[in-house]
Amino acid sequence: MLVDKTVQNFLAELASSSPAPGGGSVAALCGSLASALCSMVCRLTVNKKKYENVSDELKAILEKTEFYRNEFSRLIDEDTIAFHVVMEAYKLPKATDEDKIKRSQAIDEALKKASDIPMEVLKYVSEMIEFAIIIANKGNQNSLSDSSVAALLLQSAGVAALYNIVINVKQIKDHAYVEEKQKEINKYTEKIESFSSMIKEVAQKNFIP
Amino acid sequence: MLVDKTVQNFLAELASSSPAPGGGSVAALCGSLASALCSMVCRLTVNKKKYENVSDELKAILEKTEFYRNEFSRLIDEDTIAFHVVMEAYKLPKATDEDKIKRSQAIDEALKKASDIPMEVLKYVSEMIEFAIIIANKGNQNSLSDSSVAALLLQSAGVAALYNIVINVKQIKDHAYVEEKQKEINKYTEKIESFSSMIKEVAQKNFIP
Repeated sequence: MLVDKTVQNFLAELASSSPAPGGGSVAALCGSLASALCSMVCRLTVNKKKYENVSDELKAILEKTEFYRNEFSRLIDEDTIAFHVVMEAYKLPKATDEDKIKRSQAIDEALKKASDIPMEVLKYVSEMIEFAIIIANKGNQNSLSDSSVAALLLQSAGVAALYNIVINVKQIKDHAYVEEKQKEINKYTEKIESFSSMIKEVAQKNFIP
Repeated sequence: MLVDKTVQNFLAELASSSPAPGGGSVAALCGSLASALCSMVCRLTVNKKKYENVSDELKAILEKTEFYRNEFSRLIDEDTIAFHVVMEAYKLPKATDEDKIKRSQAIDEALKKASDIPMEVLKYVSEMIEFAIIIANKGNQNSLSDSSVAALLLQSAGVAALYNIVINVKQIKDHAYVEEKQKEINKYTEKIESFSSMIKEVAQKNFIP
């Protein structure tokens, strides 16, 4: 599995001429990194005298951030697997009309799966970003650069996932499916957008020199 | 070294209650991930018949992206080491006046080093972003989501590095040094800003549904 490789080997495999892992797995990894930073800030806040009044809230949020870290990590591998299935489908024979129909159906099915993975990333980002804002505002203020990097990176994970959904959905022939996915995309991106100003606010308050 | 850990263990260490590795190492890692994606797109372009006219240019750029991947990877560890030095300096004795002076000097020195590392990240991002735009525009268009994720992530690496510079510089007492760093920050962020519209253009052209 990709997450069992060393960071250095993961980077080397990413840089190689094989198209997978690619941007889809990186989107999921950005989600994992952001979740891990959020977990760290929760741990640096919970049970600290100065943060007594938010300790219970951040303890509960820590359970969520750990859940999302694991989910995003699972999706790093799933994205690469789904991409390989697409590549295999494109290699199917297209000699006869029957071949062509079968191949076309296999490609559509593979592309659906390949867009479902970044859609999960986008969904999790839209959920997780709410917690990241709470952590930045209420968590240990010595770790404010960490929680701000987490919020920033979550947003990038969301946009990167969106790129990967669109590039796959564009090739899908099942129009009903594409329309349904478009609705999902709008729902999640609206939620992420609604947090954009809060992310900027955190940054501007503290880091704009 | 951090880059010798598995991705899973790196994430676990990031999530732990130890403040390092933190957002600074993640900023550098984002630079590595972006560079690796750029290398991949170069490799998927060079020597392809369809991209004959840009083959030489992208072969030369591949050398750069591989250089930056290694530099960013080195900085993942250096940021964590520099942070530990800061924490050690804060633990120095402060019983006598002499102690206090020595401690204060040690903290200032450690903070300078700790802001120099993300400054290197910011500098490399400002150089690398130019190549990322060329790769997105001229590289293999089947990998457009990968090169777009790379450009996006480079920008995030730059902003994340900026957060980490500011949080350290804020605590430094040597005002001449702080002023000089402010100039450097402005130079690099201006260059990154000047590419923002190009990054958005690539994205809007291709991925805004």
